[in-house]
Amino acid sequence: MSETKEIEIMQSVYDKNDQEAAKINETLTNSGIYAVNVMGAPGAGKTSTLIQIVKRLGDITPYVIEGDIEADFDTKHLLSLGVKAIQINTGGACHLDSPLIGKAVEELQIKDGLLFIENIGNLVCPAEFMIGEHAKMLISQVTEGSDKPYKYPLAFEKADIIILNKCDLLPYIDFDESFFMKGVRALNKTAPVVKVSCKTGEGFDEVLVWIREKMKA
Amino acid sequence: MSETKEIEIMQSVYDKNDQEAAKINETLTNSGIYAVNVMGAPGAGKTSTLIQIVKRLGDITPYVIEGDIEADFDTKHLLSLGVKAIQINTGGACHLDSPLIGKAVEELQIKDGLLFIENIGNLVCPAEFMIGEHAKMLISQVTEGSDKPYKYPLAFEKADIIILNKCDLLPYIDFDESFFMKGVRALNKTAPVVKVSCKTGEGFDEVLVWIREKMKA
Repeated sequence: MSETKEIEIMQSVYDKNDQEAAKINETLTNSGIYAVNVMGAPGAGKTSTLIQIVKRLGDITPYVIEGDIEADFDTKHLLSLGVKAIQINTGGACHLDSPLIGKAVEELQIKDGLLFIENIGNLVCPAEFMIGEHAKMLISQVTEGSDKPYKYPLAFEKADIIILNKCDLLPYIDFDESFFMKGVRALNKTAPVVKVSCKTGEGFDEVLVWIREKMKA
Repeated sequence: MSETKEIEIMQSVYDKNDQEAAKINETLTNSGIYAVNVMGAPGAGKTSTLIQIVKRLGDITPYVIEGDIEADFDTKHLLSLGVKAIQINTGGACHLDSPLIGKAVEELQIKDGLLFIENIGNLVCPAEFMIGEHAKMLISQVTEGSDKPYKYPLAFEKADIIILNKCDLLPYIDFDESFFMKGVRALNKTAPVVKVSCKTGEGFDEVLVWIREKMKA
């Protein structure tokens, strides 16, 4: 296949995805749902972040769509906490897309609340696909190193909030925070960067302030 | 586009890639090069692992092809250590493929030695594409958590050696080693799993034994 042909095919995949994303977003908005696309590398702490947030939501009802290639540990964990959660297994695909989310939203039948869509653990592909979200939350773990914004720019550029997780490990590793922040700000002038630890719960009150403001707006 | 059409297109991409991978592998073998495809999530410690290995190679000449979406920190670091290294920036693509490696191998003009091809930081897509390698090395960091083999099975299934990095952090985190190993062995009966720390250098003598055996075979 020619390269031009391949690019045309990819463009048609993106266009179809984005049209469907816009429809999902409209459906969710009309149902009083604020949707957050949660992105991050494998093991960055996406589910652990959601658990910390859910504990602090008060009168806001949380819903979760869990994306994984295989397995359903995280969904089981969330269900055990009383969160309405459903699992999507992509069986190999490296990101969630709008057709998958469209079906899951129909199945969940949700109204008035906060929907987290936890994407596949991947710092590359999920950032390219809108899935009906109102905001993108990027989870980066300090143990990944401070050069990640430079190497994986799109995820950092598109994020509406950046959660810097596992800060309890900072005393034991070499993490250059000013280099990290310089990389982030070269791509993204406005997203708050919140230092947290899912182990200790530190930092999550600030995340909750952001969520409440976004949901009011 | 229909789903069948999309599957057909992907199959043609895989077939074309694998044919070219076989050619690259033959060229490298004929030049006395043993090639290792180095895979792992963002920040797992792929380059740090290569640096530890290169220090211990003795009379084996190392070469590195560095894959990144953007930036070239790692190549500069390797060059500063006297390693013949070149950078591939995919500009967005989430894995290396054979056409990219074919060109890089031509450019490097290498003979008699050990070639590491450091893939994009991604625990999903690189495992799907052969790129002319003789073996696949998977770097997993303990801070990613012990459930990774269950969630990202293909990379663990296809690995010829699994390096479990950042073991110096084990005292500070919850990592269930027996759960991790159970997940690995359900997918892969034979690949050695070597616990290392790129920070302290611990465990790399065992990695070197594996490399020397593979290169002799």
